[in-house]
Amino acid sequence: MNPRIGIIMGSSSDWETMKHACDVLDELKIGYEKKVISAHRTPDLMFSYAEEARARGLHVIIAGAGGAAHLPGMVAAKTTLPVIGVPVQSKALNGMDSLLSIVQMPGGVPVATVAIGKAGAINAGLLAAQILGTVDGVAAQALEERRKRTAEAVLESSGDLV
Amino acid sequence: MNPRIGIIMGSSSDWETMKHACDVLDELKIGYEKKVISAHRTPDLMFSYAEEARARGLHVIIAGAGGAAHLPGMVAAKTTLPVIGVPVQSKALNGMDSLLSIVQMPGGVPVATVAIGKAGAINAGLLAAQILGTVDGVAAQALEERRKRTAEAVLESSGDLV
Amino acid sequence: MNPRIGIIMGSSSDWETMKHACDVLDELKIGYEKKVISAHRTPDLMFSYAEEARARGLHVIIAGAGGAAHLPGMVAAKTTLPVIGVPVQSKALNGMDSLLSIVQMPGGVPVATVAIGKAGAINAGLLAAQILGTVDGVAAQALEERRKRTAEAVLESSGDLV
Amino acid sequence: MNPRIGIIMGSSSDWETMKHACDVLDELKIGYEKKVISAHRTPDLMFSYAEEARARGLHVIIAGAGGAAHLPGMVAAKTTLPVIGVPVQSKALNGMDSLLSIVQMPGGVPVATVAIGKAGAINAGLLAAQILGTVDGVAAQALEERRKRTAEAVLESSGDLV
Amino acid sequence: MNPRIGIIMGSSSDWETMKHACDVLDELKIGYEKKVISAHRTPDLMFSYAEEARARGLHVIIAGAGGAAHLPGMVAAKTTLPVIGVPVQSKALNGMDSLLSIVQMPGGVPVATVAIGKAGAINAGLLAAQILGTVDGVAAQALEERRKRTAEAVLESSGDLV
Amino acid sequence: MNPRIGIIMGSSSDWETMKHACDVLDELKIGYEKKVISAHRTPDLMFSYAEEARARGLHVIIAGAGGAAHLPGMVAAKTTLPVIGVPVQSKALNGMDSLLSIVQMPGGVPVATVAIGKAGAINAGLLAAQILGTVDGVAAQALEERRKRTAEAVLESSGDLV
Amino acid sequence: MNPRIGIIMGSSSDWETMKHACDVLDELKIGYEKKVISAHRTPDLMFSYAEEARARGLHVIIAGAGGAAHLPGMVAAKTTLPVIGVPVQSKALNGMDSLLSIVQMPGGVPVATVAIGKAGAINAGLLAAQILGTVDGVAAQALEERRKRTAEAVLESSGDLV
Amino acid sequence: MNPRIGIIMGSSSDWETMKHACDVLDELKIGYEKKVISAHRTPDLMFSYAEEARARGLHVIIAGAGGAAHLPGMVAAKTTLPVIGVPVQSKALNGMDSLLSIVQMPGGVPVATVAIGKAGAINAGLLAAQILGTVDGVAAQALEERRKRTAEAVLESSGDLV
Repeated sequence: MNPRIGIIMGSSSDWETMKHACDVLDELKIGYEKKVISAHRTPDLMFSYAEEARARGLHVIIAGAGGAAHLPGMVAAKTTLPVIGVPVQSKALNGMDSLLSIVQMPGGVPVATVAIGKAGAINAGLLAAQILGTVDGVAAQALEERRKRTAEAVLESSGDLV
Repeated sequence: MNPRIGIIMGSSSDWETMKHACDVLDELKIGYEKKVISAHRTPDLMFSYAEEARARGLHVIIAGAGGAAHLPGMVAAKTTLPVIGVPVQSKALNGMDSLLSIVQMPGGVPVATVAIGKAGAINAGLLAAQILGTVDGVAAQALEERRKRTAEAVLESSGDLV
Repeated sequence: MNPRIGIIMGSSSDWETMKHACDVLDELKIGYEKKVISAHRTPDLMFSYAEEARARGLHVIIAGAGGAAHLPGMVAAKTTLPVIGVPVQSKALNGMDSLLSIVQMPGGVPVATVAIGKAGAINAGLLAAQILGTVDGVAAQALEERRKRTAEAVLESSGDLV
Repeated sequence: MNPRIGIIMGSSSDWETMKHACDVLDELKIGYEKKVISAHRTPDLMFSYAEEARARGLHVIIAGAGGAAHLPGMVAAKTTLPVIGVPVQSKALNGMDSLLSIVQMPGGVPVATVAIGKAGAINAGLLAAQILGTVDGVAAQALEERRKRTAEAVLESSGDLV
Repeated sequence: MNPRIGIIMGSSSDWETMKHACDVLDELKIGYEKKVISAHRTPDLMFSYAEEARARGLHVIIAGAGGAAHLPGMVAAKTTLPVIGVPVQSKALNGMDSLLSIVQMPGGVPVATVAIGKAGAINAGLLAAQILGTVDGVAAQALEERRKRTAEAVLESSGDLV
Repeated sequence: MNPRIGIIMGSSSDWETMKHACDVLDELKIGYEKKVISAHRTPDLMFSYAEEARARGLHVIIAGAGGAAHLPGMVAAKTTLPVIGVPVQSKALNGMDSLLSIVQMPGGVPVATVAIGKAGAINAGLLAAQILGTVDGVAAQALEERRKRTAEAVLESSGDLV
Repeated sequence: MNPRIGIIMGSSSDWETMKHACDVLDELKIGYEKKVISAHRTPDLMFSYAEEARARGLHVIIAGAGGAAHLPGMVAAKTTLPVIGVPVQSKALNGMDSLLSIVQMPGGVPVATVAIGKAGAINAGLLAAQILGTVDGVAAQALEERRKRTAEAVLESSGDLV
Repeated sequence: MNPRIGIIMGSSSDWETMKHACDVLDELKIGYEKKVISAHRTPDLMFSYAEEARARGLHVIIAGAGGAAHLPGMVAAKTTLPVIGVPVQSKALNGMDSLLSIVQMPGGVPVATVAIGKAGAINAGLLAAQILGTVDGVAAQALEERRKRTAEAVLESSGDLV
């Protein structure tokens, strides 16, 4: 499958969080690529990645980072593709720094921010699929089916309250 | 123009913030509709709006709310269209409550969250356009041109530092 | 016993917290029912549960949820029974997101919010009993006796300071 | 009307907030009394008020306070009537101190906490009415009608988005 | 030794923190008493303890509590002896709730607040001794000597940086 | 009157807050002195002031400062007199920085911290008087009378709730 | 004078804050240049500015920005000159977002962060001068004299406490 | 090597954090000295260290401390050398108290603040080297080479995403 989603993260230590975005896309059978790209340690690579993304056929970029998390916002500054930012939970401040660094973008350059940590990574994958699904019926259908499965799982779980 | 973007907000007092999303879409010549829909005061209307959105031709929903801001997340629970959440600045807690109520969604139901207040509303409009622009060359082109204009404005503004 | 209290929670992972509400009601011999109902994954079930609660004989609903915790407020939007919200401690933000998502409701739709986590769940059970106890002398009496027992436990515990 | 609701506050400066609870009860035609009672400046009065409340015919106590807001929790320690706590917005910390001082009660003594400031005071009045309404059909009916009126007001307000 | 310092705490689970205050007073050879007194579970005992403290010969009361920590402020409301409040570290909010509930007292009733947790308990013991030491040369001398010992310990500890 | 209380502050802009401590001491007829002493701009003066305080007859030092508020803690490091710290409300962070910089002292060097801003300054004056009042019957008596006056003022203020 | 300090800011609206850095350098007679450079709106300009800074003779870069403030960290990623970051006070979150976005840099790329707002801008100018002053005796001397003037101003200001 | 960097910390328990600053300077072959100096327990030593630092040949001082972290700011008050402050992660508040106590310095006395904990300590070492590197080509060169190594490590780490 030609990747339509690019998943990048600031450090290989973010993989434990970001793999949940990959799992969702695997489950939905949507092609993606994944890479470590650091805003602060490989800034030029970050810029060229963002600049070339649309021409390479990507539709959405998912970027995860923690602390002073500049990767999502700087990628967003170099492309007009939708960029989804995943705040990775940081050690001292539990991801509050990551969240504010990603979500509080100035008017002009949006980052679609999701929750801190694993739930955010899952939702980043789903949101990317939902963006594809605005025009891609197969993706939309896969998402509807996933919703049904999670609803059924909730219904069954009342039996676990013992 | 047939609206491809639905803009909703929990109260008419959110309009001062949310009109900035409308201004951006006007500037980019992208059709939208706007409505007050309250998660807590008109919950059934909220659900039917979300359920019918895709069939009515909407591609993206922008939802603004403040305080215990449930509108974006509950709309997202009833559609697989992308939902963008705008945290409106609240009186006591300056929008921190709005932000956390919108962004901290559990895995399974994403909300694309933007910044608190006016900057967030502007970026909600732009993000909606960027989502359209993944497949709509006219929208993508309009976004690229807006980026150029804002870059030029920055270059000129150094003259204001007096 | 016909249940007068409905205890619901967004996920079976909330059970570890919410069981403390059940324990209190067991101790006070007040009938209740318990269920997993997710605002985001089973929104229609949530609405029908809230709509039918009064007719089914419930007097109070206790709803526990974490993160962007919309369950208590959305249930409250669909019934005029008292709804007690229990903020479940979340992973990254320790329940501060849960608390603000539950307590900061707009004027018009109240949620009776208690403390984050186990203490809140205990108090949700007690508060539900106190609501019944405004007109039910047996419940009121059971509460008074529980208060006496906890006071005695405090008096004895000074002996533990070694 | 014999008052069934007692509304107390730590200082006459809290009246600007707490009057909204009174307005709601007036609107719903539910009898109440109101008083300044300070946890720190009139502790003995606070205790006797709480101790005598049930015998005097009160069903619910609404207590508003700001800063290190001990009034709701200490009243709750001296009665098993439901106590609703309203966090008044404080000067330096915007009511975050009031909120945490009221909501984070230890297991054993619940306070039904509502939002900071005016929205919280409105909801305190409504929650008190909802508690009465668990067994009082007139109160329940008045609440249902108020809900309808607020829903209609939302529907009409979309016309204000200009 | 006749106790001049009263050390109270809301729960025996606070002892792990509060014992550090006792250790300091033991080290300085200053007499104290210790007791569990809960603001919420034994409110009358709290009031009588505070009211009788001066007549019983106490000079300073140290009160430790966590969460919605009302013990120090309510004791301070019932005596004009100096009351030192120790915010015990709470589970969800790490003692930020304890701290704000203790320190943000309204004008009229001061609580001398120290740091969250163990450091605060140590300093509560020292502060009590310093209050005695304003007129008691023996206490003042013991404090000066303790200061010298801690300074020497610092000087020696540079050798540990390996 | 020979001053028994020293009131110092980091900047003359803190006077608007700190004058409330002076007003209280005037009301209680307790002698004090007042001075601007900056931890960062006049560090040597700060040290000599603290070192000489006891010999000059001071019993208590009240120190007010804002932002990275080091004055109370550094004075406390240079004397074993009780030091009361008043967190002055800062511009950006509303005094939360001042509060944490003052209250979170390490074990060994206590600062008796009071509330942020005006209420804290009033209470600093009262706490200083309470410390004197542990052995000075006149001060203790003046404090008791002030308590009575404030209780009466509360009782009368219920008439203002209109 | 050939500029040794580069002062940049993300928007001309930051000038009201950043001009205080310029004032300090004027007072110390240290040459600087000033420019609006936006991380998000002119990312390429930001990179070329940072890359060429050392060769152009700059010794220190001062960068001010607010909200998701990426300018200081991204400039730091493209040069090994010292970069001083000034968190500009933001509207909703009072600069807490700016501060965390600037200070919480990952290991490898430091930003020398100063206080939020005007005090931070003043200190950015002084810190830049102190860096020059490590080897430039004239700058060091000017700084020592400024310190003396501010100490004298403090001493005189005690007369203002009336 | 004659030390050009002085590394001090408030307690030997800060060594686990601060050793990372030493490791960086070892790697860059820049001489330093290290010592425990406590603002609160050895205030006179702190002052003499700061006063003599320039004459002893130090160019930069790195100071680490936690909680009410006064060491960096007070050292900065006694020297015009650049002082880098490292907020050590504290137990209850995760270093937020340390950060605010260090970074929120008043105008006149800057502290170059870095991130909380290990990343901050690494960056303190690098920032000190960057300050030397403004005029010392060897240091500048070592820094450039370190940057290259970290960029290469990022490039290779994409292979770890499995």
